[in-house]
Amino acid sequence: MALEMYIGVDLGGTKTKTVLATGNLEIINEKTIATRMDSEETIIQGIFETIDAVKGRKVIKAIGVATPGQLNREAGIAIQAPSMGWHSVPLTRLLSERYQVPAYIENDINVAALGEFSCQDESLNNAVYINVGTGIGAGIILSKQVFLGNSGTAGEFGHLTMEPGGPLCKCGNRGCLEAIAAGPAIGARATQWARARQDSSMHALALQRELSAKEVAEFARGGEKLAIELLQETGRYLGRAVADLVNLYDPGLVIFGGSVVLNSPDIWEAMLAEVKMRLMPIIYAQTEFAKARFKGDSGAIGAVVLAKQKTN
Amino acid sequence: MALEMYIGVDLGGTKTKTVLATGNLEIINEKTIATRMDSEETIIQGIFETIDAVKGRKVIKAIGVATPGQLNREAGIAIQAPSMGWHSVPLTRLLSERYQVPAYIENDINVAALGEFSCQDESLNNAVYINVGTGIGAGIILSKQVFLGNSGTAGEFGHLTMEPGGPLCKCGNRGCLEAIAAGPAIGARATQWARARQDSSMHALALQRELSAKEVAEFARGGEKLAIELLQETGRYLGRAVADLVNLYDPGLVIFGGSVVLNSPDIWEAMLAEVKMRLMPIIYAQTEFAKARFKGDSGAIGAVVLAKQKTN
Repeated sequence: MALEMYIGVDLGGTKTKTVLATGNLEIINEKTIATRMDSEETIIQGIFETIDAVKGRKVIKAIGVATPGQLNREAGIAIQAPSMGWHSVPLTRLLSERYQVPAYIENDINVAALGEFSCQDESLNNAVYINVGTGIGAGIILSKQVFLGNSGTAGEFGHLTMEPGGPLCKCGNRGCLEAIAAGPAIGARATQWARARQDSSMHALALQRELSAKEVAEFARGGEKLAIELLQETGRYLGRAVADLVNLYDPGLVIFGGSVVLNSPDIWEAMLAEVKMRLMPIIYAQTEFAKARFKGDSGAIGAVVLAKQKTN
Repeated sequence: MALEMYIGVDLGGTKTKTVLATGNLEIINEKTIATRMDSEETIIQGIFETIDAVKGRKVIKAIGVATPGQLNREAGIAIQAPSMGWHSVPLTRLLSERYQVPAYIENDINVAALGEFSCQDESLNNAVYINVGTGIGAGIILSKQVFLGNSGTAGEFGHLTMEPGGPLCKCGNRGCLEAIAAGPAIGARATQWARARQDSSMHALALQRELSAKEVAEFARGGEKLAIELLQETGRYLGRAVADLVNLYDPGLVIFGGSVVLNSPDIWEAMLAEVKMRLMPIIYAQTEFAKARFKGDSGAIGAVVLAKQKTN
């Protein structure tokens, strides 16, 4: 019997990455294009184009799609993707009609969690995937499946309140983890700190424009003390939130992805030290902390896992 | 066919409460005695005595036991119950041998969660039960079952870090929710506050001895401003932690038990106001907050549910 094939689509704000893979997650073909943000139609045409390119004349069993923002899973509708500027697109219906196979949609962080989980030991049932980039979110895997909670919003890790009177978050609350430790928040805080500190090598640049989290990490690699201090502080905030999450879920494994946490050893080390300090030794000892393996591929591979789980 | 019968035992630090109930959770007989803390033997003799009393000559299908502290579920062993002063008691084996039916053991907060969940609507799959008393803990119900996490420690709600440099907790961390908002912490903080405030009607008593959380709640009912202020602050801490938990689990329903949260309207109202302020409106709107219904009975009823779930 021929191996069953699946399509996995990772629809991001800048790139659309699509793979054709076997049920064993072996990638047969892949195609990445820039997401054409002009309109809903151009985004969807881009998806079709990548699927046509990787599929060729192969027979597929199902399609999985990772999308940012909120969605209506049962109706297969992407309700709101701020980075995409779209509302209520019946994505899975459009895909099912064109390719005559079932199509499934899931939030990008949850799909990345499935992707990263797929390369873990078979004996593992639970894990949490934490992404720290432009935003902060978590995908919760329980019994090898995405855990959605009662209404599909489980894993709002970026909105844990870390400082009751802290900086205003996009969600309306103050002091959310995302408003302190996501990339834009790191850049904004570094700019503020550097403007007030003439002795910092970030000072001149900060007077001209906002620093980015990437630049702060570069300054830190160059030995800039203020940058290191800020990234360590950021790591401590992340670590405290991770300890809270481990206390509540006892996940056994926490996988970290996203540029902010993967590109800064200062954040990584301060985060893990804080986690260790906050957790009871018995709970710390039973939890593993790892970096994402697939990085940019976890979305597309996770979308294949999603399609496979839904059709088996 | 005769209805199947189960025994549920709620083994507490002060009382042992045992019920005989049908699979429909109708209580046929119940017996409560003071837990005889002299030794492991006297505690276990007390359990036997209550079971003998409620069982009579009825045929039972299984026994469920709620115990405080850590336990080894597979071996049926209570490893550590600080309030009981015991270690490694093979409780389920002793019960199975004597009554010739399977016996199951679970942490008291998790069992109370099962008990409270049993009187909810059939359509409900998930809920969280939060107990705020001498300690603070949460029992997580997912797919109608206790969620244990990877190593059995899920739901360590009392050890969320609320104040990174706050009061030392028994667990070794600083600023845990339990070190701020559990009964003893409320009493200790009230004593400290009242000693420094001659204008408070708690002042004279606080100079003599430590206040209890119960006394603080009584002062607040009498209109004492410092007590009200302290309970409202406590409610805000609890609310912030509850919002974190809802963000991570999206449980749909949060049930509150325990004397601290049930006996103080100041805590209750400040807590719910804080939850509302912290959560995104869409998440707040999809979550219900309720007080425990069974109160003192949730442990024994939950132990019956445990026995029934494990044998069906």
